[in-house]
Amino acid sequence: MVKLLGDSDLTGQDVMARAIDVMELAFRARLDNKIVSPPRHHVSFGEHGDLVFTVGGILGEAPLAGFRVYDTFQNSKQSQIVAVWSPDKGRLKGLVLGERLGAIRTGAIGGVAIRHLSSENARSVAVIGSGVQARTQLAAAVAVRTISSVRVYSRDLVNRKAFAQEMQRDLNVEVTPVESVAKATTDADIVICATSSRSPKLHAADLTPGAHVNTVGPKLVEGHEIGFDVADTAKIIATDAPEQTRAYASPFFLAGTRHENRMVDLAEFVSIPSRTRSSSQDITLFCSVGLAGTEVLLASVLLDAF
Amino acid sequence: MVKLLGDSDLTGQDVMARAIDVMELAFRARLDNKIVSPPRHHVSFGEHGDLVFTVGGILGEAPLAGFRVYDTFQNSKQSQIVAVWSPDKGRLKGLVLGERLGAIRTGAIGGVAIRHLSSENARSVAVIGSGVQARTQLAAAVAVRTISSVRVYSRDLVNRKAFAQEMQRDLNVEVTPVESVAKATTDADIVICATSSRSPKLHAADLTPGAHVNTVGPKLVEGHEIGFDVADTAKIIATDAPEQTRAYASPFFLAGTRHENRMVDLAEFVSIPSRTRSSSQDITLFCSVGLAGTEVLLASVLLDAF
Repeated sequence: MVKLLGDSDLTGQDVMARAIDVMELAFRARLDNKIVSPPRHHVSFGEHGDLVFTVGGILGEAPLAGFRVYDTFQNSKQSQIVAVWSPDKGRLKGLVLGERLGAIRTGAIGGVAIRHLSSENARSVAVIGSGVQARTQLAAAVAVRTISSVRVYSRDLVNRKAFAQEMQRDLNVEVTPVESVAKATTDADIVICATSSRSPKLHAADLTPGAHVNTVGPKLVEGHEIGFDVADTAKIIATDAPEQTRAYASPFFLAGTRHENRMVDLAEFVSIPSRTRSSSQDITLFCSVGLAGTEVLLASVLLDAF
Repeated sequence: MVKLLGDSDLTGQDVMARAIDVMELAFRARLDNKIVSPPRHHVSFGEHGDLVFTVGGILGEAPLAGFRVYDTFQNSKQSQIVAVWSPDKGRLKGLVLGERLGAIRTGAIGGVAIRHLSSENARSVAVIGSGVQARTQLAAAVAVRTISSVRVYSRDLVNRKAFAQEMQRDLNVEVTPVESVAKATTDADIVICATSSRSPKLHAADLTPGAHVNTVGPKLVEGHEIGFDVADTAKIIATDAPEQTRAYASPFFLAGTRHENRMVDLAEFVSIPSRTRSSSQDITLFCSVGLAGTEVLLASVLLDAF
């Protein structure tokens, strides 16, 4: 029978550390044009919604092929499937089911951004939001920097307290719930914005010089979780999938602004050692989009490890 | 965890009987425009080959959505995945892995064709070929007609003897290996041609008046397992997926011939009771192509049964 992993297999900080290494490899392969990542494929089932396929993989010495599929059905139970083949052997390596793999993947890409864009001496993290993406982004930050304090703000008191308790336990770092965005971001070296808000929750005035921001939530013209002023103040704006920012059905929030053409591919920071923040006072911004094909690479490594 | 079936779960004649019922429903739904079956989606992984997705399902009272994926990699181990969602509930119903589901599906469509096109009094079957498709087509024939004798011819003596022994045991009907196509087809009411041959193995002269032919193997202009003379002599030519015959990369073998426009959708024979063979002397021909979406419907029924 085919090898099969589920959400309960994908826990622990070693999974995140391994995932970040995989994403580093993916970005290097991307600049070498070895990553296969065609646009997403949608099939509509009328009023119910779509099945969406991100097919992709990597060519070269140890090639991989596969896909992730998710649904946009009403009342979706978020049952994603990732499948991986070794195309040179014609063999299905296995399947990963559930929603954790996608969140870990996105967290790990955030970790790559933090590794290459934040200050090497970053010690404090602000987290805006308390959902799955906020958790995996924080886990990634802790994996790549020596973090000594975390403050979390989210609208709901219960949620931010639960987040603080659980993350403190899981990551072995002090996590404090606070009552406002400003209280979280004051003096924070790294700011993780991971909400589902379509109106700006984070503004330039909230940021300390030298801060690095990861935005994981909505980033469309019709709704975005960070203010345009954050982009205005950022010395560097990077993204993991420049093509995808141009392929959204609704325009990307920086489309048509002066920032559109200065967005840099995160792959360049990974592959070109000299490309990094130039001053300790710079604000940097990473817009997380989701590079296709990376789920397949991560699934492959996890399947090999089990 | 998600429900999961494999090849070993899909055995026995009750699976075939159930599959034929599902295909009857699918063809009825197709004429009502309730079947979702967009063209296949190919993604290339360079020299290795493609992943191919047939996405599809059914709309209406008990909607289903899903896909089948298979690879065209060299040395492929034929590891297919079929996944089924209940889109109205946003729920992944389960997965079926392996290659049996696809073969049963194709056999069951062949069974629908035999039920609606062959003589009701058909008793004898000729099988050309001894592979997986030959087996499921014969199982389908036995499920819809009272078959008393089967003769099988395939090039390889060992293969045709093994086919005869195993099918006789599995289907509880007399199966005799013979030394030529003509010896198999003499007086046969039903002829199953299921080879991988690109040069005609079956000709009009091999057929007895009143015979019905299912062709499952290659049917392209550049190579086809039955002669054009079989099409010439056939009073009725039907197919399960007329659009797919026009969507092949290489043209369908009847493209550009006088037969192209007289091909009838099998769905019409299923849905219109009066539409059937008109004379007991007619030769009829079914060209099996593979209606997309039907794998999802069959997988759903099998998942429900387990």
